[in-house]
Amino acid sequence: MMGESKNWILMATARAPTNIAVIKYWGKRDEALILPINDSISVTLDPDHLSATTTVAVSPSFEKDRMWLNGKEVSLSGGRYQNCLRELRNRAGEYTDENKGIHIEKYDWNTLHVHIASYNNFPTAAGLASSAAGFACLVFSLAKLMNVKEDLSQLSTIARQGSGSACRSLYGGFVKWTMGNEMSGSDSIAVQLANETHWDDLVIIVAVVSSRQKETSSTSGMRESVETSSLIQHRAKVVVPSRILQMEQAIRNKDFSSFARLTCADSNQFHAVCLDTSPPILYMNDTSHRIISIVERWNRHEGTPTVAYTFDAGPNAVIVAPNQKVAMDLLQRLLFYFPPARDNELSSYVLGDKKILHEFGLESLSSIEGLQPPPEAKDKGLAQRYGGDVSYFICTRPGKGPAILVGEDQALISIQTGLPK
Amino acid sequence: MMGESKNWILMATARAPTNIAVIKYWGKRDEALILPINDSISVTLDPDHLSATTTVAVSPSFEKDRMWLNGKEVSLSGGRYQNCLRELRNRAGEYTDENKGIHIEKYDWNTLHVHIASYNNFPTAAGLASSAAGFACLVFSLAKLMNVKEDLSQLSTIARQGSGSACRSLYGGFVKWTMGNEMSGSDSIAVQLANETHWDDLVIIVAVVSSRQKETSSTSGMRESVETSSLIQHRAKVVVPSRILQMEQAIRNKDFSSFARLTCADSNQFHAVCLDTSPPILYMNDTSHRIISIVERWNRHEGTPTVAYTFDAGPNAVIVAPNQKVAMDLLQRLLFYFPPARDNELSSYVLGDKKILHEFGLESLSSIEGLQPPPEAKDKGLAQRYGGDVSYFICTRPGKGPAILVGEDQALISIQTGLPK
Repeated sequence: MMGESKNWILMATARAPTNIAVIKYWGKRDEALILPINDSISVTLDPDHLSATTTVAVSPSFEKDRMWLNGKEVSLSGGRYQNCLRELRNRAGEYTDENKGIHIEKYDWNTLHVHIASYNNFPTAAGLASSAAGFACLVFSLAKLMNVKEDLSQLSTIARQGSGSACRSLYGGFVKWTMGNEMSGSDSIAVQLANETHWDDLVIIVAVVSSRQKETSSTSGMRESVETSSLIQHRAKVVVPSRILQMEQAIRNKDFSSFARLTCADSNQFHAVCLDTSPPILYMNDTSHRIISIVERWNRHEGTPTVAYTFDAGPNAVIVAPNQKVAMDLLQRLLFYFPPARDNELSSYVLGDKKILHEFGLESLSSIEGLQPPPEAKDKGLAQRYGGDVSYFICTRPGKGPAILVGEDQALISIQTGLPK
Repeated sequence: MMGESKNWILMATARAPTNIAVIKYWGKRDEALILPINDSISVTLDPDHLSATTTVAVSPSFEKDRMWLNGKEVSLSGGRYQNCLRELRNRAGEYTDENKGIHIEKYDWNTLHVHIASYNNFPTAAGLASSAAGFACLVFSLAKLMNVKEDLSQLSTIARQGSGSACRSLYGGFVKWTMGNEMSGSDSIAVQLANETHWDDLVIIVAVVSSRQKETSSTSGMRESVETSSLIQHRAKVVVPSRILQMEQAIRNKDFSSFARLTCADSNQFHAVCLDTSPPILYMNDTSHRIISIVERWNRHEGTPTVAYTFDAGPNAVIVAPNQKVAMDLLQRLLFYFPPARDNELSSYVLGDKKILHEFGLESLSSIEGLQPPPEAKDKGLAQRYGGDVSYFICTRPGKGPAILVGEDQALISIQTGLPK
């Protein structure tokens, strides 16, 4: 069939971003194919700060498909992994490397086993759409390895079957997941609305909120919403279609005021539908509520939307500022209201793009302690601080889509052993 | 015109209950007349534990209309008080007391001034529908004083103009506020579905939740919801009409399971609409969420609704148990999860009908400390306790409607001075 020996290993490594929905996906019309009940729109986050890196390897010496996530072996038996692997093997192309004496026919991919090693550059458990980055990266790297000749939108239908929102992580910038109409899901694909250079003033700050409560998984949560909420269908059929059009226009025109209004309203409506579910799904906590109140009070003081907040299936806030200047005003507010716990250092409290912090002149914990309340909080008893309620912040911006990483030093799997380095 | 002298004082004293909506009123179609966008259904709470007592007095010697609430003079200039006073004066009847030499013609009421003293037997600021009890009591006592010959449903249209939910406090037991169709509001009235003896097993526990956050008033909150929520009209026009029919049937059949399911779902949907408002209205806090989770976990363990929770425009929970036995199971859970703060005594932590507490054998704080976690929390890390998060509990039950209190010792105004005692 293939090479002369069974000792060769073929590898590919890719990095894929996570994304944050600004018009939310919540509810499936097909559980197995992961077909949604409405379109959604997301912003891809800079992979330098939030991304998955995945190396996939294939070798005739591998005895079964195996996967390691953040260094720990995990099961590939789940239907979602199996669906992605099957779809990619079906589309795999032939591959020849005459130097190494490797020749793989299309049908060989069905019997060749893969090793997958994946790593997130942010905490997996923090509720930051790690599955979106992970499945996008898995599909992107396997497509490279298996010489799949499909465009990104076709790959997005495969990533979608791993995790719905993963399809949106195949592009940088601003991405729409079109729900589609086909039973097969062939038209339920991601399309890029604009790349990451289109609106490059935006700055994004993620507040990772301390939480000890176990959360409802989004898979079971959205199933229960579809089954029990009496508002979700009205949202999906009437509200979202109009918001999608408005959001596309806001992004096209870089109209931050509309972008912020729609983003906040849609986050709140998604959580409203969760609350309208039986039993109710409660993702936001008091800290999430305080972040909303801080932004809304700031908006009222300014008379216009200042920043846009959005919350996924957990208490963490993702806040979008229109530019670096407002981002600094935002960070000042966030650090005033949510100073780090005492045993925390600033360098482990504000992560990601530290340029904001340096420009702002905040270099130490003591400078946070001395922060003054923002103007809108003065004389109103609204200057209470909540030390320790946020675990850390990540500063980032809209970023690019998945990319292949070249060079053996970038790989997570050893070319000698075929196992994680 | 009237008596021989100007020194007589005529008084009436009444007590009126508060009520808790189980199908919620949220949103007006007419702000001035207080006409709602949907029907609502409530349970009247026992006035022994939660009620307003109001004495109204009239005398030719009074120089202006005046009111005292909980001993402190308050302004009557607000449109809502003025509307109630005007409507009652328009319907006043003639009154004669030959012994005292008093004769009041219908038209005299327009020139006679009233003194009003009102007192709540529960904390006004606790967010326990004090305005519902207060306006019901004001209208009921003034109707008695002014010899208004209208039935309760007619009086309910007047109370409604003071505070929407006040119209439901004119009856005991289970009450529906029919939204009506007339522009004048003449058919937007309360009707009794069943009196308090119909389903007298029910026990109600109110958890007054500690909160330092200022809340959005329900008046401005529902205005903003009507103006900005894209879900509220679907709720009002499609969801609520069907729930009203189901709730009427559940009450008629004393079907606790349906009652609980509808009550919880409608409370959650009301808060969902609040969250869908721009800016979002956040009435529930982490403690409210924990109470919901405790009940839902208990339900899952039992496989059927155990108790019904509902939250009005604030973080307090009102929880309905089907009978005394379940109420004791509920109180055990509540006291386990929410023990009193250290400086609290049991007698000031569980108020209202203490029979439950005595039957349960909980006589001291130390017996609360020793409570075991409920079965559904065992071995699941769900047994964390939140001391001090609840201010106090009030045990009560469905109760009767307003009543006139006879005897001068019951009056809040001195027959000598015409001022609060």
